[in-house]
Amino acid sequence: MKARKLETCLSPALYDAEYHKGSIVVVIDIFRATSAICTAFEHGVKSIIPVAGVEEAREYKERGYLVAAERDGFVLDFADFGNSPFNFSRETVEGKTIVYSTTNGTGIIKKASSAYAIIIASFLNISAVTEWLLNQNRDVVLFCSGWKNRFNLEDTVCAGAHAERLMNSGLYSADCDSTQAALDLWSLAKNDLPRYMEKVAQRSRLREKGLDDCISFCLGYDYTRKIPIIKDGILVDNI
Amino acid sequence: MKARKLETCLSPALYDAEYHKGSIVVVIDIFRATSAICTAFEHGVKSIIPVAGVEEAREYKERGYLVAAERDGFVLDFADFGNSPFNFSRETVEGKTIVYSTTNGTGIIKKASSAYAIIIASFLNISAVTEWLLNQNRDVVLFCSGWKNRFNLEDTVCAGAHAERLMNSGLYSADCDSTQAALDLWSLAKNDLPRYMEKVAQRSRLREKGLDDCISFCLGYDYTRKIPIIKDGILVDNI
Repeated sequence: MKARKLETCLSPALYDAEYHKGSIVVVIDIFRATSAICTAFEHGVKSIIPVAGVEEAREYKERGYLVAAERDGFVLDFADFGNSPFNFSRETVEGKTIVYSTTNGTGIIKKASSAYAIIIASFLNISAVTEWLLNQNRDVVLFCSGWKNRFNLEDTVCAGAHAERLMNSGLYSADCDSTQAALDLWSLAKNDLPRYMEKVAQRSRLREKGLDDCISFCLGYDYTRKIPIIKDGILVDNI
Repeated sequence: MKARKLETCLSPALYDAEYHKGSIVVVIDIFRATSAICTAFEHGVKSIIPVAGVEEAREYKERGYLVAAERDGFVLDFADFGNSPFNFSRETVEGKTIVYSTTNGTGIIKKASSAYAIIIASFLNISAVTEWLLNQNRDVVLFCSGWKNRFNLEDTVCAGAHAERLMNSGLYSADCDSTQAALDLWSLAKNDLPRYMEKVAQRSRLREKGLDDCISFCLGYDYTRKIPIIKDGILVDNI
């Protein structure tokens, strides 16, 4: 059996849509978008409509949707709440369709639209994601969302955690240096993840804005078995 | 005194010319371009004209220049030699102007043209580069050349080695995650650099083509005190 390819994309600016056509793209943006989305599905959200622009989000709000929208970490005035996982409580989201606007995430989903599938990952659903991927006979791209098209450490470390589990299966080959770097950084981080994350730039940015209360939650393993997946442009539960 | 900024750019695709205007750009492409260029200057080359295209290199050849030109590791038929540091012996290059065409390097020099200065670095001139940078009151960007616009591990590790020395001076602040990643990967590699480099993808690619004979040479510290620098588009000795 031919080994499946495992690649890691360290920033949206490095994603090559043509090269990764047919792969499963695993989007990682742990502080805080993909952690929040995983939490929302654990709490029973029906679906999440990702939107790119502020105006688009506002129009949905006017049509009665619940809207999560922020820019650079600040909740937009017309929105119901921002992007912290703590906003997506069962009381708030169960059974509902939510519109979600983020600085980073929506552009990535568009960029990866020629992939076989796009799923949402974080530490919160790492075991479920690994098990699901092992059951798909597909190449995998771990897609780190980065920050403003740049590299970031937290998503790379989380990609390394996913890569380690996938590589341990023996089903994948990882010839790309990015995966090797992610595995190595994860090896430095894993014994004390909260301490390692202290040096991450995004953590300081969140702290300055008082938005870092969810960091330790975002670093917890297996809060949920849910795997959000894009279907027709909308995030739904991957059953 | 305001701390100078130290940033690391992990791939040409991540370089932001506007953001880095006024910085000193330190180009790193250790397997093999920047190691070869450092070697050429140690051996007394007068200057090196970097050219982007094969046709441009061929025209220089027809005008009587010595031409180093390869694509994907193979020497072009009209060229005098390829890009191995071993080609740039004193007998061959002393006092001469050489035309140099590479897959990667020339595009990078164009990309960084709005910087305050562009210098060429490798392990071979690491101490000289560090000392020179410490004497310049400027922000620094460690520019990893990568491979076909993608991330690579060997240049990142070398950037980490440079970053460690610069950070030890206390003159720089490094708020970017890329520098942190480079420092961490360097910390894993430094105790046995040749062994760490075994897992680098470019090393396998060079080995397959029989071009890996210079790898251990490229990993040696301080073969030269020369710091090649771009002046008017041409590489000269930075005296």
